[in-house]
Amino acid sequence: MKKFFFIAAAALALAGCSKSETPAQQDSCSTENCAYQSILTRTSVRQWDMDRTVSADTVDMILRAAMSAPTAMNKQPWAFVVLTERAVLDSVATCLPWSGLNNAPIAIITCADMSKVCDGETVDRGFWIQDVSAATENLLLAAHALGLGAVWTGVYPDMERVNGVRQRLSLPENIIPLAAVPFGYPAGDNQPKDKYTPANIHYNGWTSVQ
Amino acid sequence: MKKFFFIAAAALALAGCSKSETPAQQDSCSTENCAYQSILTRTSVRQWDMDRTVSADTVDMILRAAMSAPTAMNKQPWAFVVLTERAVLDSVATCLPWSGLNNAPIAIITCADMSKVCDGETVDRGFWIQDVSAATENLLLAAHALGLGAVWTGVYPDMERVNGVRQRLSLPENIIPLAAVPFGYPAGDNQPKDKYTPANIHYNGWTSVQ
Repeated sequence: MKKFFFIAAAALALAGCSKSETPAQQDSCSTENCAYQSILTRTSVRQWDMDRTVSADTVDMILRAAMSAPTAMNKQPWAFVVLTERAVLDSVATCLPWSGLNNAPIAIITCADMSKVCDGETVDRGFWIQDVSAATENLLLAAHALGLGAVWTGVYPDMERVNGVRQRLSLPENIIPLAAVPFGYPAGDNQPKDKYTPANIHYNGWTSVQ
Repeated sequence: MKKFFFIAAAALALAGCSKSETPAQQDSCSTENCAYQSILTRTSVRQWDMDRTVSADTVDMILRAAMSAPTAMNKQPWAFVVLTERAVLDSVATCLPWSGLNNAPIAIITCADMSKVCDGETVDRGFWIQDVSAATENLLLAAHALGLGAVWTGVYPDMERVNGVRQRLSLPENIIPLAAVPFGYPAGDNQPKDKYTPANIHYNGWTSVQ
């Protein structure tokens, strides 16, 4: 049964689980396995259709997904800077290696707000990177689920990049930019990589036989 | 149109986009917005139905989703230890604060394999935490999409926890456990938190008016 499901799921992955599906394909695509397949079919998109604008409502939906990430002790230590102005996108692009910001219609800089994890009551236990990373991954997955394409460009902990972004966006000292995520409606062919590697999996300890 | 979509999406979120939907609800739930809604409806689950076993195929699907995460320079610096034996789950539970491992049917320890980021050709640029965090978030989202429930328990960078897990699972020095994720079929009532906070959103710089 599971084998059948997996074959069906693989077929759906090839079909893309997207708006381009035929109605017949949509009918065979249950809500449950399409949510799963959408995780598998996300891929880094680095070329966008500049004639298609991303609406403010869509950006808001993506940010809502980012803020749905899990967060240690419910600190929610994140902040998001949405770049919509061409001059700002191009300016931030100059302090990053290839980031796509200068040929993307829009981008979000995912940040940590350290005032939320070092708030006088609790000390930072170092989980903020994981929290903001989970929010960033949600952002990428939400973009993909909504028919857009995005790519994660690392900022932190490269301090040259951190300081460059911080200066260009007037970020206060407590705000650490973690990643730059340009996105938009995809152009070109964007196929997901198959990174499944059984050797990465161990059972009940490192030395156990799989 | 977007407003209508959002209201429909919110209604679907309340309906849960799960197996418990009526056929009519499933019909109204497009593949696209269910993939998105699944991100919003994921929540931390800390109680499980111990009478329902998680199949090996399901575990494999979850691990496949984890390995579909984005990864800096395609290093894929992750490894996964699946805990299925009661004695191992209970042993690892003793070196963590409340982790759920001792009342979960199964868990996955998400790890970094530092030999993949410090491989002689490249030096670690510190992005591995983000890579393994993205894989962990994919794991949680895949579990939710497949009808299971999971919770992210922080291990790294708390070195007491890291060393405790490392010792109990015989992890080599190059393997750093990042998170412990117990999961299973959920028991009890698990409602997602609404963490959407408009004040977290800025446009084109920190001082811009929204």
